Amino acid sequence: MSAVKIFGHQNPDTDTITSAIVAADIESRLGRDAKAFRLGEINAETKYALEYFGAASPEALGTLDAGDPVILIDHNEFQQSADNIEKAEILKVFDHHRIANFHTESPLYYRAEPVGCTATILNKVYKENGLEITKEMAGLMLSAIISDTLLFKSPTTTEEDIDAASELKEVAGVDLEAYGIDMLKAGASTRDKSAEELITGDAKSFDMGVKTTRIAQINVVDVDEVFERREEIEAAINNQIETDGYDLFVLVVTDILKSDSKVLSLGKESGAVEKAFDVALDDNTAVLEGVVSRKKQVVPNITKALS
Amino acid sequence: MSAVKIFGHQNPDTDTITSAIVAADIESRLGRDAKAFRLGEINAETKYALEYFGAASPEALGTLDAGDPVILIDHNEFQQSADNIEKAEILKVFDHHRIANFHTESPLYYRAEPVGCTATILNKVYKENGLEITKEMAGLMLSAIISDTLLFKSPTTTEEDIDAASELKEVAGVDLEAYGIDMLKAGASTRDKSAEELITGDAKSFDMGVKTTRIAQINVVDVDEVFERREEIEAAINNQIETDGYDLFVLVVTDILKSDSKVLSLGKESGAVEKAFDVALDDNTAVLEGVVSRKKQVVPNITKALS
Repeated sequence: MSAVKIFGHQNPDTDTITSAIVAADIESRLGRDAKAFRLGEINAETKYALEYFGAASPEALGTLDAGDPVILIDHNEFQQSADNIEKAEILKVFDHHRIANFHTESPLYYRAEPVGCTATILNKVYKENGLEITKEMAGLMLSAIISDTLLFKSPTTTEEDIDAASELKEVAGVDLEAYGIDMLKAGASTRDKSAEELITGDAKSFDMGVKTTRIAQINVVDVDEVFERREEIEAAINNQIETDGYDLFVLVVTDILKSDSKVLSLGKESGAVEKAFDVALDDNTAVLEGVVSRKKQVVPNITKALS
Repeated sequence: MSAVKIFGHQNPDTDTITSAIVAADIESRLGRDAKAFRLGEINAETKYALEYFGAASPEALGTLDAGDPVILIDHNEFQQSADNIEKAEILKVFDHHRIANFHTESPLYYRAEPVGCTATILNKVYKENGLEITKEMAGLMLSAIISDTLLFKSPTTTEEDIDAASELKEVAGVDLEAYGIDMLKAGASTRDKSAEELITGDAKSFDMGVKTTRIAQINVVDVDEVFERREEIEAAINNQIETDGYDLFVLVVTDILKSDSKVLSLGKESGAVEKAFDVALDDNTAVLEGVVSRKKQVVPNITKALS
């Protein structure tokens, strides 16, 4: 069997990249030939984490061949995965999302838990297998938890995430709060990004009944920095709606310090956001108080509104 | 929240019934309000196991209401599950099958491993949670492993199943081989069953591309006992094909002592069995040497032949 390819979702974030590296460490130490890959460019936040803990960025995944053994990290929906994923042999999944548009021909190892971060599950897997966690791997898992939970402010945060981070910061040897703010800020600047980059950097597609929805999220420390560029961004979104046939495109701009979000909702189903969050759109925008999680707040509410 | 309903698949076998009881024991001991149910009648083999270890049969599941919290055992494909499963809130899944026709709106706990039996996974879950296993629960898990692996003769058997059975027989206090043969034989008589019962007792539907396939399995110690009733059984199968619109219905009659199977293949795609197993059908029947596992041998081969 060729080496198992381990990778997270498209438009990779910190959890998806670092958990792929960590899962490859676990598999390798259990004696399996395994290697981490990425499905897109490393973002500024992830780059900060990798450099801080001296970890190399995974290589970009090439084309998958039929029957290639793979392990999916931090996702399962095929439209968020590698091209040709239907033809690969999925050996394992480590994830913390809903399950949809996923199927296999054979039994597999599937480990999902409703926690805030894939790394929280991997931290358990080390222990279940009696493997010691290195400083580097602890730092990567800690970075993933901080990123996915926005330093425990996201409603996706569970006691298990907090406990895992508390253990891991000791092994990683960092001040959790100080390191966390620095890492989040490293990823929060939008000035050096094109409108195209902003709406694709952390974007996922969802089949919601008969409708296809695209939800992009940007974490910032200054929401106005994004909305000053409204015209340029709206043009880029409308372009994607036309090219890719989305019924709804929601851009979620999340203030990581205030823990709320301002959304821009476009496409012929743009009104779904009003029903989903009981708000009135003003020129296609609305502030969603306390909303910071795409998975726990945005996706379920819009799914219901569209059904 | 109302009590969590825990249940296995339709046409319940020993693993699906006993693992639902065992999972309810685990959840209850972790402080959750949980109860095991069944989606069909208890078969003779399962009845033997439940009586031997003094366990009560679960109640039949009534109608599921929208939002009912449930835990699925030994299955995930919705067409094998309870009516209305799409509307329930699936909190957890413990399973050892492929994943297909399964989706949720929210993140969940999903624990699948490619082992021979759900009970082998539950045995681990007891340990991970530091819970002691009672004699009754050990006996039920042991029975499930013996049933699903046909006393370790099925190719679905893994080292983990063998190790789990070896631990559990000590707690259960039985002679593995003697108890196993007695339990399998208790379920292997076909004389007291109608043709209808034989083809529905352990039958599952599978969407295979655009084709719908029904695969029924009977474990016997005397294959001829079934094929003497060929005419009556064929009429019952053709009746189901017409009523339920199957493209293919395969009856797999497995000799649990010789470890091979004789199949009867009907429906407009009946020829798929020839391609799937490289055999020639003689009057719609064929002997499949060494084939005893629907999951590991029959389903993947027919899926490929139909694609």
